[in-house]
Amino acid sequence: MSKIRLFSTGGTIAKRYDELSGELVFDKEHIEKMLLQGRCKADIKISTLMLKDSLDMDDNDINTILKEVKNCNENKIIITHGTDTMIQSAKKLSKIDDKTIIFTGAMIPYAFKNSDALFNIASAITATETLKYGVYVCMNGKVFLADSVVKDRKLGIFLSL
Amino acid sequence: MSKIRLFSTGGTIAKRYDELSGELVFDKEHIEKMLLQGRCKADIKISTLMLKDSLDMDDNDINTILKEVKNCNENKIIITHGTDTMIQSAKKLSKIDDKTIIFTGAMIPYAFKNSDALFNIASAITATETLKYGVYVCMNGKVFLADSVVKDRKLGIFLSL
Amino acid sequence: MSKIRLFSTGGTIAKRYDELSGELVFDKEHIEKMLLQGRCKADIKISTLMLKDSLDMDDNDINTILKEVKNCNENKIIITHGTDTMIQSAKKLSKIDDKTIIFTGAMIPYAFKNSDALFNIASAITATETLKYGVYVCMNGKVFLADSVVKDRKLGIFLSL
Amino acid sequence: MSKIRLFSTGGTIAKRYDELSGELVFDKEHIEKMLLQGRCKADIKISTLMLKDSLDMDDNDINTILKEVKNCNENKIIITHGTDTMIQSAKKLSKIDDKTIIFTGAMIPYAFKNSDALFNIASAITATETLKYGVYVCMNGKVFLADSVVKDRKLGIFLSL
Repeated sequence: MSKIRLFSTGGTIAKRYDELSGELVFDKEHIEKMLLQGRCKADIKISTLMLKDSLDMDDNDINTILKEVKNCNENKIIITHGTDTMIQSAKKLSKIDDKTIIFTGAMIPYAFKNSDALFNIASAITATETLKYGVYVCMNGKVFLADSVVKDRKLGIFLSL
Repeated sequence: MSKIRLFSTGGTIAKRYDELSGELVFDKEHIEKMLLQGRCKADIKISTLMLKDSLDMDDNDINTILKEVKNCNENKIIITHGTDTMIQSAKKLSKIDDKTIIFTGAMIPYAFKNSDALFNIASAITATETLKYGVYVCMNGKVFLADSVVKDRKLGIFLSL
Repeated sequence: MSKIRLFSTGGTIAKRYDELSGELVFDKEHIEKMLLQGRCKADIKISTLMLKDSLDMDDNDINTILKEVKNCNENKIIITHGTDTMIQSAKKLSKIDDKTIIFTGAMIPYAFKNSDALFNIASAITATETLKYGVYVCMNGKVFLADSVVKDRKLGIFLSL
Repeated sequence: MSKIRLFSTGGTIAKRYDELSGELVFDKEHIEKMLLQGRCKADIKISTLMLKDSLDMDDNDINTILKEVKNCNENKIIITHGTDTMIQSAKKLSKIDDKTIIFTGAMIPYAFKNSDALFNIASAITATETLKYGVYVCMNGKVFLADSVVKDRKLGIFLSL
């Protein structure tokens, strides 16, 4: 059993540029690349649940996340997620009270030079290692409880309620 | 008063390439650049105590760090430091028992494409926000107590004692 | 008078990620950023004619390019352009026989870590300085005459006819 | 036979950061990485002659370069070289009058985020394809004849004599 389980669901953090279609597509290996760049030695098992924009997520997707988090052996959980509905998804997991669950993502995909992805993933990893059970959002260098955070869409940042 | 105080002391994390001399030199603005890239909104006050390789640090430098950490108003402290003597310096601060003190740094300077600096700085920020008083080292996606960590110089990673 | 005139029309090379909308948008300063990174000291005057995907260009746009190239004082011309219709636009300029005209662009926007943009812009600059009058496409480290090049859309590369 | 032969001799362009020693060392694969990033499809054969700072090059090294360039089958030649003595080395090859020989390098190693290396290598490739026989230096987006260029060490740029 790994100490930390990371469930990837897609979102901005996962996008790369497809040079044939000229469109942003999902990079299945974005998490591995980030852990490698961070020289991360934390014991993390990665599972890709889906690769979706958070605005495209439906109840089935949320239920998949809920079920996987509930049923996995690990009690330190990271969920990478699009930022638009990250908070709603996080709230759906609030009934799980025996795990430390961290939601994170990025405003700029990891594939871009000026991305915040590496910063946020590190923040989430450290949060799983240090926080007691509960559901949290890690963005902008801050840790928020899932039920007391909002995303300011105009500023593109997460704020305490 | 800021919530977090970051003392920069130099080390690998701070290096950039000087194109006139062809040498690695210290970039005084490396911390600001990282916080900007991470879209970090944590309340952090940055103070540059010195810009030195950790192998060049002497007792005066360690005393400066000790004094500054002890006397500052904040109780959440980050110290960026060269990795070679990071653990020794961290141990020197162990007598401070009313602050959360995190040492971090990087194996590859922030100026390089494949740097772990952004990852480590985020880890340290989250650690100051979540850990109780004590002196810690944050490297490789892990949090270590200062008195139970070693650097494996052959592998270039930090390990639990 | 500058020695080289660069007309920017948009295309993949110019895209950046807008973190509020989550979409690719045009970066008005992409050319300046590339010339700065390349420590380019060539005497280049930049004019942005439009910022469009090449598939969105119409006859008006082509006529604007044609007129601007014909009427400018410089005889060394670079046109940055989306790759999908770059060759068609280049052929429209073939009647101009007293200038060296180079079309270039990128498969991956400059804002991405693995972009070919800097490579292509340098290639185009050198081509204007070394080629006799004519209309050319510079892509993939090669120089093609506008009337003897095709884009292989499956491979994403430019080939000689 | 390839159309272009690239002789790598080291210099700033080739440096990477060794995270164990904390020093700049030579990256044997820097040219391949650049051609890959540039989606370069030019027919280039790469040979590493040595990996040295240009200030460490001696007469033996220059003779090796001279002999290899003279004896190779290709007549389009690129030599990557440290910038400090690039011009002197270029002048030593002036007796070769049946090849197009381009010297290039970088002020900032390719491994750094803000490197000019990709820009310069593209410029050199295009120069071999477009210039008549002679010995040239390609730096700063310009093409210089080897006997009419100087490096301004204070500004870190190449200028016409």
